[in-house]
Amino acid sequence: MASPTVNPDLARERKRATFDPIQLTYVLYNGPERVRRKRYLQSLAINDPVIANSPDWHTLSREQKYEEVMRKTVYYTNRVQELGLTNPEEIFSYREAGMAHENSAFGLHSSMFIPTIEKMGTEEQKQAWIPRSLRYEVIGTYAQTELGHGTFVRGLETTATYDPKSKEFVINSPTLTSTKFWPGALGKTSNYCVVMAQLLTQGQNCGIQAFIVPLRRLDNHQALPGVTVGDIGTKFGYESIDNGFLKLNHVRVPRMNMLMRYAKVLEDGTFIKPDNDKLVYGSMVFIRSVITNDAARSLGQACTIAIRYSAVRRQTEVSPKGEEAQVLDYQTQQHRVFPALATSYALWFAGRYMVDVYLRVTEQIEKGALEELPQLHGLSSGLKAFSSWAASRMLEECRMSCGGHGYSNASGFSKIYVDLTPACTYEGENMVMMLQSARFLLKCFAQAKSGAKLPGLVSCLNRPLRGSSSIDSRLELTALFDAYEHRAVRLITEAAGRVQGLVTSGKTGQQASNQASVQLVAAANAFCHAFVLKTFMDKLSVGVSDAAARSALNTLCQLYAVYGIVDNLGEFMIDGYVSSKQATMLNQRLLDLLAEIRPNAVAFVDAFDTPDNVLKSALGRFDGNVYEAIFEYAKNSKLNEKDVADAYHKHMKPFMDEMKLKAPRVAARL
Amino acid sequence: MASPTVNPDLARERKRATFDPIQLTYVLYNGPERVRRKRYLQSLAINDPVIANSPDWHTLSREQKYEEVMRKTVYYTNRVQELGLTNPEEIFSYREAGMAHENSAFGLHSSMFIPTIEKMGTEEQKQAWIPRSLRYEVIGTYAQTELGHGTFVRGLETTATYDPKSKEFVINSPTLTSTKFWPGALGKTSNYCVVMAQLLTQGQNCGIQAFIVPLRRLDNHQALPGVTVGDIGTKFGYESIDNGFLKLNHVRVPRMNMLMRYAKVLEDGTFIKPDNDKLVYGSMVFIRSVITNDAARSLGQACTIAIRYSAVRRQTEVSPKGEEAQVLDYQTQQHRVFPALATSYALWFAGRYMVDVYLRVTEQIEKGALEELPQLHGLSSGLKAFSSWAASRMLEECRMSCGGHGYSNASGFSKIYVDLTPACTYEGENMVMMLQSARFLLKCFAQAKSGAKLPGLVSCLNRPLRGSSSIDSRLELTALFDAYEHRAVRLITEAAGRVQGLVTSGKTGQQASNQASVQLVAAANAFCHAFVLKTFMDKLSVGVSDAAARSALNTLCQLYAVYGIVDNLGEFMIDGYVSSKQATMLNQRLLDLLAEIRPNAVAFVDAFDTPDNVLKSALGRFDGNVYEAIFEYAKNSKLNEKDVADAYHKHMKPFMDEMKLKAPRVAARL
Repeated sequence: MASPTVNPDLARERKRATFDPIQLTYVLYNGPERVRRKRYLQSLAINDPVIANSPDWHTLSREQKYEEVMRKTVYYTNRVQELGLTNPEEIFSYREAGMAHENSAFGLHSSMFIPTIEKMGTEEQKQAWIPRSLRYEVIGTYAQTELGHGTFVRGLETTATYDPKSKEFVINSPTLTSTKFWPGALGKTSNYCVVMAQLLTQGQNCGIQAFIVPLRRLDNHQALPGVTVGDIGTKFGYESIDNGFLKLNHVRVPRMNMLMRYAKVLEDGTFIKPDNDKLVYGSMVFIRSVITNDAARSLGQACTIAIRYSAVRRQTEVSPKGEEAQVLDYQTQQHRVFPALATSYALWFAGRYMVDVYLRVTEQIEKGALEELPQLHGLSSGLKAFSSWAASRMLEECRMSCGGHGYSNASGFSKIYVDLTPACTYEGENMVMMLQSARFLLKCFAQAKSGAKLPGLVSCLNRPLRGSSSIDSRLELTALFDAYEHRAVRLITEAAGRVQGLVTSGKTGQQASNQASVQLVAAANAFCHAFVLKTFMDKLSVGVSDAAARSALNTLCQLYAVYGIVDNLGEFMIDGYVSSKQATMLNQRLLDLLAEIRPNAVAFVDAFDTPDNVLKSALGRFDGNVYEAIFEYAKNSKLNEKDVADAYHKHMKPFMDEMKLKAPRVAARL
Repeated sequence: MASPTVNPDLARERKRATFDPIQLTYVLYNGPERVRRKRYLQSLAINDPVIANSPDWHTLSREQKYEEVMRKTVYYTNRVQELGLTNPEEIFSYREAGMAHENSAFGLHSSMFIPTIEKMGTEEQKQAWIPRSLRYEVIGTYAQTELGHGTFVRGLETTATYDPKSKEFVINSPTLTSTKFWPGALGKTSNYCVVMAQLLTQGQNCGIQAFIVPLRRLDNHQALPGVTVGDIGTKFGYESIDNGFLKLNHVRVPRMNMLMRYAKVLEDGTFIKPDNDKLVYGSMVFIRSVITNDAARSLGQACTIAIRYSAVRRQTEVSPKGEEAQVLDYQTQQHRVFPALATSYALWFAGRYMVDVYLRVTEQIEKGALEELPQLHGLSSGLKAFSSWAASRMLEECRMSCGGHGYSNASGFSKIYVDLTPACTYEGENMVMMLQSARFLLKCFAQAKSGAKLPGLVSCLNRPLRGSSSIDSRLELTALFDAYEHRAVRLITEAAGRVQGLVTSGKTGQQASNQASVQLVAAANAFCHAFVLKTFMDKLSVGVSDAAARSALNTLCQLYAVYGIVDNLGEFMIDGYVSSKQATMLNQRLLDLLAEIRPNAVAFVDAFDTPDNVLKSALGRFDGNVYEAIFEYAKNSKLNEKDVADAYHKHMKPFMDEMKLKAPRVAARL
């Protein structure tokens, strides 16, 4: 299919760049050695005949998709073991190359089931479940969400009632709305499950606890008595994953199936409180941090497709009868795609930073030091929302920037989008996440007002608001950042004032929070925006050794900052911090930055180093031979297996024959 | 499936509304008689057993979807004839009830093929093709876009070379990129096609003309010699439609197959120019007007789903241990969904207005009066972009406002979105459409500067810019509209100045336009925004007789206006027109408006009068019994036909057995 030569427009773009993209690849993946290793592992997967013979995703039925991903998952699991891979990043790179945009069938087993037991189980419980899980005798998932209950965990209806006589918990779904709903791999794949349920013992409700519940027989995988389990049907995406429902009808499990590292139920039914119940949410914090990385990677892929295609696509002559221009030369196209490019870099650095912080904080938590947990929780929830919203919106902008061909599944966009956009909802609905973040910020604000000196990110709340911005046409990043910080502090201050005012006027705390919630979300959003810009700047100042790459990346960082101001101009102008003159200048400089980035656009996306097998895009191919690829995709349509479709013989022909006989005066038109 | 009772939350909402929704239904559908007729026709379709027995869309394969829609299309075409329906609106209502979100298989035949011949054919040509088309002997489509060429029509590569010896045109696809690509119903359905091609005669290129080309044999539907035609493969949506590709290898058609009402080729090959070549684009203007209606209807459906579900869904206790609140009571939820609601009404009125104008102007064009064509063209292109962008973005916001269940295909959102979002691309890519609109505005601006008095919509360009807004907390619509008009005029003035400045500095007109294009788009967007607000206000002032309904709709119109200012605040503040104080007031009043609309939210969506069969949404049901419906949808998943999936026997079991033998120390985790 691939033509051996690179499209000349794309080749010229690569020659014109002011830096060598490999230098940024090193920055993105933390050094040459990791890049070499990533490429080696990905080439192994790409050249593996078992994977290469995979059928085209878009021609498969739902059931075939489930089966195909299961085939690949077990194959990869074996191969990863044979290769001796243990580093999660390496495993990810390797798997990604052959299962691009397809989730592992055992993803929840690895990322939620096992970690939950590891984090919340006693030593004895870990002994009992982890080895069996690691050898895939037990394959589990994590069931929290119910048909009628999502983000509000305390509202869950599933009950686990302790029976001291038999020393068992009776797990039950008392209502339709208590049916567990949505957990990945619950419908068909898992034989075990961590079930979050209201613990009832000695006549008391002791809150939500985690219980290990067997779902299917280990010998033949049939659902166990009392367990009604199945797939929830098709979704916008995630077609290979059997998100499931689960009804438990008084299912009994031994006492030791409640995870008891923190909370405990003694044999007689006495409940022992945990030291800190925040720990229950530990595994969610990690997943939220990972989502920012997913958002950055997905958006980077979409930018790769949009920018390479825009370099190859020519549309509309620039001078009469002249050659048609590369779409990438249109200012409107740059304005659609380059902010997304800048955002993908920004989120990439922010995501890596968060995972690093998470790993550091987790170490401390394991040692019993919980001071940093609120900050991590507050930031990770806001950033999860900020990054998934930004990526989700910009992914669609990238798709639409590719015109009609962007709508074809040949472009690869649709699959990236439908797999990323649920990140706005899962692991905490974004609006709720922003409000969580805002609550953290309000607490910090109150502490600052009472004179406490705040650490790190929130230290800006200790400083008074400056009256006006020092931004000028040089676009110094520190001045731009000051504006973001100012906006965040102003919005936090105003939201806090609004909440306080409502409480003073007699509203309850909850009513006040609700009536200030639009402002609270704006405040948290502004804080996350400032944070993301800050991590981008920090990376620039210490993480990029190559001067040419650093200079180019600096321009991209300026675009990120300036676009964010122009895109939210009212929030920067409303108190006069950014003046009309500055705003006009920023509008103009934004266009200048687009032109500055233009020659490096292809190099910026090449630096993401995404193999064609991962992009799976006729438009984003490294060699730019897009039209051959689109046409090849078209020819493979299932509908083309027959020249004359069955529908013609079954429906059209009889209809046309009938119409001929009728010879209507005026026929109906649909 | 349906429980006989209405969910009590939803019933209470309906009681609390300040107006009777039927009054707004009359406004939306132009009177009680049309509403009665719509309901009658829709109930016919809904109760038709041939349609009721349709399988669940989301369980069908691509080929089955194509076949199912063909089955329904021929059935409906017959039924429409039997019922004697001729009014397009009635046909639409009837068909919609049974084929919701499924395009007619003959849609391009009716909306493009026949109208193009009617508009561009001579009397003789109409005689030759229209009767055969109306009795479905000839089934056609319209092929303009090519693999390498979209919006820029002059760039098309397909050639039609006149051969005076045989008095035939030789139609040819000289390159891969000249392959016709994307036309609906081209792949498998159509046996004829209007092909747009470069006319070559007497050694001259005479521009793009329309040619009728047979594609398939009329007796057995096989592709004709020289014709390579097929389906282009799966897309984000439109799965039932066989968007196609077409390569023509020196296919000969008689001279009379060129549509010659305007341009002509005489027998000897002499080319006769048309009086006005704008007429070639006539059918595109109509389709663009219709897109605004599609956008309004789709968004109205999404709001119906989101608002009804938000009334039923309860999440998070408002007071400790109290009842969980209706999601609709959360300010953030109102802030997500109510602007979409206001927009769906605004676009509804704007779309109806445009179709009325179109019909009036078309009558004039048929009489040879072309004065209004530029204004219609300029406005319809911008409005097409404005409305499809707004709806596309807000549809996704509605989906995400419904949390996890919004992502399930049970919600109905995904299908509405993937069918509406391509409207941002087809019939003229939105960015190009906005630039077309901007070009029209620049011309008007130049005329105004040279002292011409402009008519209607653009007369604002005759007035000087006012310095500051008179908006106050009463939110009078005229004051709000003034702000929109001011913003539009300012942006048009600035964009014109920028273009002029660039030309003065030595750029060509095309370079100048490109370097001002981001500003031009902003200007056209602002103009369309003002226009849409204006049609909403006009409707309020003359089209709503019921006082209670008018009062409620007035609040919704205020929300539309205020939200648009707050959402684009920088554009209103940058020149000081809206002051900081006014901006702060508007931010606050926006929240007040959300609270005012809250009790009427369900009534506003009930007024759209969309039957459950059209919504096809477990979340948007009129009776609000959402959980029963979601669970029912889940149970019907194809994956649930077997308790133990085939994938277990084929892949999981062998893998688990193998792992047992290996007993790995540390197993691989994917």
